[in-house]
Amino acid sequence: MRLLVVGGSDAGIAAALRAREIDPSVEVTVALADTYPNYSICGLPYFLAGDVPDWLSLAHRSVQELRGAGLELLLEHTARAIDPAAKRVTLTDGAAHEVAVAYDRLVVATGAAPIRPPIEGLDLPGVHVLHTMADSFALNESIGGRGAGSALIVGAGYIGLEMAEALTTRGLEVTVVEQFPEVLPTVDTELGGTVRTELMAHGVEVLTGFRVEAVGREDGALHVKGDSGLERSVDLVLVVVGVKPDSVLAGAAGVEIGVKGAIRVNRRMETNLPDVFAAGDCAETYHRILHAPSYLPLGTTAHKQGRVAGENAAGGSRLFEGSLGTQVVKVFELAAARSGLRDDEARAAGLDPLTVGSVAFDHKAYYPGAQELHIRLTGDRMTGRLLGAQIVGHTDAQVAKRIDIPAVAMFHELTVDGLNDLDLSYAPPFGSPWDAVQLAAQAWTIQWPGNALNLPRAEELEARVAGGRGSGA
Amino acid sequence: MRLLVVGGSDAGIAAALRAREIDPSVEVTVALADTYPNYSICGLPYFLAGDVPDWLSLAHRSVQELRGAGLELLLEHTARAIDPAAKRVTLTDGAAHEVAVAYDRLVVATGAAPIRPPIEGLDLPGVHVLHTMADSFALNESIGGRGAGSALIVGAGYIGLEMAEALTTRGLEVTVVEQFPEVLPTVDTELGGTVRTELMAHGVEVLTGFRVEAVGREDGALHVKGDSGLERSVDLVLVVVGVKPDSVLAGAAGVEIGVKGAIRVNRRMETNLPDVFAAGDCAETYHRILHAPSYLPLGTTAHKQGRVAGENAAGGSRLFEGSLGTQVVKVFELAAARSGLRDDEARAAGLDPLTVGSVAFDHKAYYPGAQELHIRLTGDRMTGRLLGAQIVGHTDAQVAKRIDIPAVAMFHELTVDGLNDLDLSYAPPFGSPWDAVQLAAQAWTIQWPGNALNLPRAEELEARVAGGRGSGA
Repeated sequence: MRLLVVGGSDAGIAAALRAREIDPSVEVTVALADTYPNYSICGLPYFLAGDVPDWLSLAHRSVQELRGAGLELLLEHTARAIDPAAKRVTLTDGAAHEVAVAYDRLVVATGAAPIRPPIEGLDLPGVHVLHTMADSFALNESIGGRGAGSALIVGAGYIGLEMAEALTTRGLEVTVVEQFPEVLPTVDTELGGTVRTELMAHGVEVLTGFRVEAVGREDGALHVKGDSGLERSVDLVLVVVGVKPDSVLAGAAGVEIGVKGAIRVNRRMETNLPDVFAAGDCAETYHRILHAPSYLPLGTTAHKQGRVAGENAAGGSRLFEGSLGTQVVKVFELAAARSGLRDDEARAAGLDPLTVGSVAFDHKAYYPGAQELHIRLTGDRMTGRLLGAQIVGHTDAQVAKRIDIPAVAMFHELTVDGLNDLDLSYAPPFGSPWDAVQLAAQAWTIQWPGNALNLPRAEELEARVAGGRGSGA
Repeated sequence: MRLLVVGGSDAGIAAALRAREIDPSVEVTVALADTYPNYSICGLPYFLAGDVPDWLSLAHRSVQELRGAGLELLLEHTARAIDPAAKRVTLTDGAAHEVAVAYDRLVVATGAAPIRPPIEGLDLPGVHVLHTMADSFALNESIGGRGAGSALIVGAGYIGLEMAEALTTRGLEVTVVEQFPEVLPTVDTELGGTVRTELMAHGVEVLTGFRVEAVGREDGALHVKGDSGLERSVDLVLVVVGVKPDSVLAGAAGVEIGVKGAIRVNRRMETNLPDVFAAGDCAETYHRILHAPSYLPLGTTAHKQGRVAGENAAGGSRLFEGSLGTQVVKVFELAAARSGLRDDEARAAGLDPLTVGSVAFDHKAYYPGAQELHIRLTGDRMTGRLLGAQIVGHTDAQVAKRIDIPAVAMFHELTVDGLNDLDLSYAPPFGSPWDAVQLAAQAWTIQWPGNALNLPRAEELEARVAGGRGSGA
């Protein structure tokens, strides 16, 4: 059985390795457009910050390791067309020669491409996006080689904030511009405000509610203009406003396209075409709470989808169990994490959410170094079910693995109060007898009418069902 | 409704607070033998280390806060007898006056007492146990007031190792003696060996496989003798070999006693006597994997059992969802954690476990400060179900909250390979696209016959069922 994988990043390599792992007789070929298979795109900001001196160390696995695992790698091979009837993919190699590769099963893992917002002057020298190793080298040249002293970052999402830290670490004066009212719009504004404070404490200029409209070159500098009178002159502009699925190749071959332009897949990661799978940032993501396709391009998800696609392509039968959009970002000394739905997202999905914010120490306050964690839990008023969690706190406060507690709980459809039943670890230097997420659950539960025995809970719920979901207390 | 709680530590206070929370009309009285309600016993080593300068800060809540929550506190009231027919408890107060308190519902939360092993001379001055605030003050006096320069600790469990660190921090020469072959016998010896190395690197003398037999006083020092020629002269001896349930009061009143002398309870935390509940270290613990009563005295469990007992005593209906024995300990720069069953425990329970050890970095190796995590996962060969997890690694490596990932997974009966489906957070400074516990799960899965498609999995399982559980590969 010949498995062809188009794309050599997280999803593609995970698919290739898993297929070989469960059936070593599968012949696996991976074609990728550049020469950087299995590189950690998430590591680019740390390479650019100087935290990672050698960019070669960004590879999850070397070319030798991948070949050692039995993968045939076609480097610098860009896929041009899929012929699903002939089961063949046409590619061009580095010398522009055309190559045809036949397959029995195909995994499309073409990833995503940076969104280019409608800003004039994006093609000027010194204006960058950040998605590939090549982007990274170009940006590094702008910072170091040309000695940039100041930078403006368009977009205050994950990459924007990581790059704000990275460029500050490299000694640049950094301005971040975000069109939403607060930075890190993936979390509630209350928590985004904490992140803004951290950015400002490290000298980053934060401009929210502004839209950048044009970049021009004047007197050797880049001149940035936006609405509401925004004007800044800087040496470097970085545009990081998100990504869109790279589904052109698949779409041209008749693969059905779904949410936000991503390749439509079922939970086996199959497309509508026989023997054609898709995985990673080019594909839809089954959302575990919404039970519906969504678009959540994350490295973790790409690995999992790739693994499922590879297993099924090799003859297995596994479902992708879904994403909760669990994610975390480091911003200087803060970690900001979320999993599941925010209040507004739950409401938009037709649920009746209750969101309660609370503050708890990461470990017993009497033990030195205790840090405040700002936690927001969203639960369903009707059922008490946990729908979402957000945590912001110090990088020493185990925020990343603490968000995994509600993440695993939501994976299993636990209620908010059910968090209090979980047997979590505790020692005074690391936690509390009730972990901070359990204290947050108790804060939520106190505000939830279903908690109190002396309220007519059953009748109240009936009344709400009769009155529709929106009538909750 | 009058609720009486006997015991003012974790379980008792949790019961009292929860009863008031869900029904503020309940009159709650808490009787305790000393004057330290709601103190963090787990914090004693950190007070003794000097990390917690003020012992008052060890209180989870002050007397004022507890009274503010509507609890009537009877300090220095020792319960002497329960009359279940008359629904009355007889106590003696600090002045030895007898007091009778009537109840409608009773929660027994009398906790545990330190085990006193058969060692001669345990009553000598300078020989200590550590369980109460009074023990703590006495030990502190021996260390500081009398200027001890050396200490021998009998028992290398959690408290023993925390105290080895504490006394080292206080400048004492410390010897730890453990009768088992390795320190921290709650984890596998492979991981215990890592902890031993850490102890020795900090100057602690570690003697395993020795049994202490006698302590005598000679020339102003304590002379410790054991088997195999063990002899040491020290200024201070600390005996911390575990605890046993304090179930005498309940037993005398006709309450049924179960596992290891603990009060028998059902999952509502009810004893065999009407309206008498028990919770915490005096009571049995329903084990979530074994589906059977066990004895697992842990502060986390005490809080949860107390909360369930208080809720039910106030008229609610909640089950204690069980313990996995999840725990973590800090030993100098190491954290050692476990949850669920070890291989030998699973085997003793009639299961057919497979345990696989692996090593993974806590976060991407290219980001500075990556630490090795030593992980051991135990799964059921028959079903693939996750049965246990152990992690040892640096205190900066989020070990405590990382063990919570398998803990929450086991709570929901996930398989080992199912860990790979969990949507966990990732950023290069905090983790990997596959978290370390997922990489450990992959290492386990590769060794599990159920993983490979090209093995006759279904037939093999049938054959195993036919041949009995012990015949697994």
